Amino acid sequence: MPVISLPDQNWIDLVGPMEGIEMLPWDLAEEPSRRDEISFVVPPYMTSCRWERLGVLPRLRVVQLLSAGYDNVVSAIPAGVKLANASGVHDASTAELAVALALSALRGIPDFVAAQARSQWLPAKSRPSMADRKVLILGYGGIGTAIARRLSGFEASLTAVASRARAGDGLVDSVHGVDELPSLLPEHDVVIVIVPLSDATTGLVGRDFLASMPDGALLVNVSRGKVVDTQALLEATSSGRIMAALDVTNPEPLPADHPLWQVPGVLISPHVGGVTSAFEPRAVALLREQFAAFAQERPARNVVHVG
Amino acid sequence: MPVISLPDQNWIDLVGPMEGIEMLPWDLAEEPSRRDEISFVVPPYMTSCRWERLGVLPRLRVVQLLSAGYDNVVSAIPAGVKLANASGVHDASTAELAVALALSALRGIPDFVAAQARSQWLPAKSRPSMADRKVLILGYGGIGTAIARRLSGFEASLTAVASRARAGDGLVDSVHGVDELPSLLPEHDVVIVIVPLSDATTGLVGRDFLASMPDGALLVNVSRGKVVDTQALLEATSSGRIMAALDVTNPEPLPADHPLWQVPGVLISPHVGGVTSAFEPRAVALLREQFAAFAQERPARNVVHVG
Repeated sequence: MPVISLPDQNWIDLVGPMEGIEMLPWDLAEEPSRRDEISFVVPPYMTSCRWERLGVLPRLRVVQLLSAGYDNVVSAIPAGVKLANASGVHDASTAELAVALALSALRGIPDFVAAQARSQWLPAKSRPSMADRKVLILGYGGIGTAIARRLSGFEASLTAVASRARAGDGLVDSVHGVDELPSLLPEHDVVIVIVPLSDATTGLVGRDFLASMPDGALLVNVSRGKVVDTQALLEATSSGRIMAALDVTNPEPLPADHPLWQVPGVLISPHVGGVTSAFEPRAVALLREQFAAFAQERPARNVVHVG
Repeated sequence: MPVISLPDQNWIDLVGPMEGIEMLPWDLAEEPSRRDEISFVVPPYMTSCRWERLGVLPRLRVVQLLSAGYDNVVSAIPAGVKLANASGVHDASTAELAVALALSALRGIPDFVAAQARSQWLPAKSRPSMADRKVLILGYGGIGTAIARRLSGFEASLTAVASRARAGDGLVDSVHGVDELPSLLPEHDVVIVIVPLSDATTGLVGRDFLASMPDGALLVNVSRGKVVDTQALLEATSSGRIMAALDVTNPEPLPADHPLWQVPGVLISPHVGGVTSAFEPRAVALLREQFAAFAQERPARNVVHVG
């Protein structure tokens, strides 16, 4: 009978009993209790793990993350072990945060919150609407598509960009290749970044990228902080030319003395794209599906790396 | 040739010349320059007008507002004069603000803005997502429908309520009658209010209404402040039981010493539903259509009252 570790007893209770599977709690902080038996590990979500502990499990075959991002885990995956991410689990939650950040920045919500703290009714001032905006979604996997689905009712024009050009779906006419960015950026009012972090995407949003965005454009980042060159963004936003709404930063957490905190036109949320009520039911559904496949020796979904 | 007044020269320039129509600027503040000739008036938008001046125009036949609301004008419309509102013009802008306010409140944007002012990265805390929420849209005219269209991609469940029950559209299975509210409210996490202000809707969201909403529910008001009983809302939100996001208040503007400003879980925007870049192109399109109909003696659209 396969022995599967989950982060704690709460997760075991949420997933519920499954025939032919034994579940035990392990958070990767301590030594595991039954190291010779565990063959499938679900590490804790959003906590820093001692990933090297994965190396002590002789029977380990699958590591199933609860996050979509996996860049920080790859190097710790032992030879032959499959790494699966939680692709799909965070789509709804992250996509709606991207839309929430974009709408908040465009419509002035941060100004209203600041005025409310002073009990001040601000005079009317026209703001950009999402309607009529040209929105570029950079990264068109599960979350990018979920963002497009959410924006489809807003009378905005949507452009999708992925690593390679391909045919469109019901939401966009076509998906552009990332090589087309230089000609696309100047035409777009809002850029929403949701690419995975890789060598190719590290620093992708740098000085040239930001310089190609038109005056007053808005950058939304819900991917990884390192996709954006922080210094370049600081310059582009401090000049007042570009607005930004960021759920991720580099460094992260952003230190208290970082100048980005206090730039007008920059809105920062503390990496909460996936931290909502939408997470648990979708995560449980994925885990049950993956556990059943594992017990029945069917292939796992969402395998993003093999050690 | 019909003589039409617009609020100022800027509006005349935006609308552009139209054959067979003369346009002149009049803001209803001063006496009109050609009172015996003006037969169609477009009053200024979002400024308090001396509506009684409409009575000095012997040839007046149509008053075309730039707002959707018209409750404050009706009593000043002279006998036989038609009052048309800007139904449709503000749908996109107001509907997206309703969604922006709902998403901001659910996902904690006000907390992030407050923390950002202190350069503080808040610890992760799970928030309600829009996904899986049950959303009741109270008022299902143009803006209510536009809200439903925008929310249709968010994996939320939508319920529409109007003054009378009727068949659904592509967005909701059916439209419930307002008499069904007592049984519907307890089942909904988010209530978005976008009814016109009338005798029937004044104070509609009162103590009983709020008491029927479940613990932790969110009230969003983008209609008129008087639809909500402010004292009842103050009590329901101060206890922490109900969250609110309000673009309109009663009184409005909310005075600096009003306790509602500082209730945690209450987000206030200063009546900016229609004040965006979406307004001008849609308003110009409506005015050109109405002016052409008037010149050709065809019936006006959006007539909401005849004096």
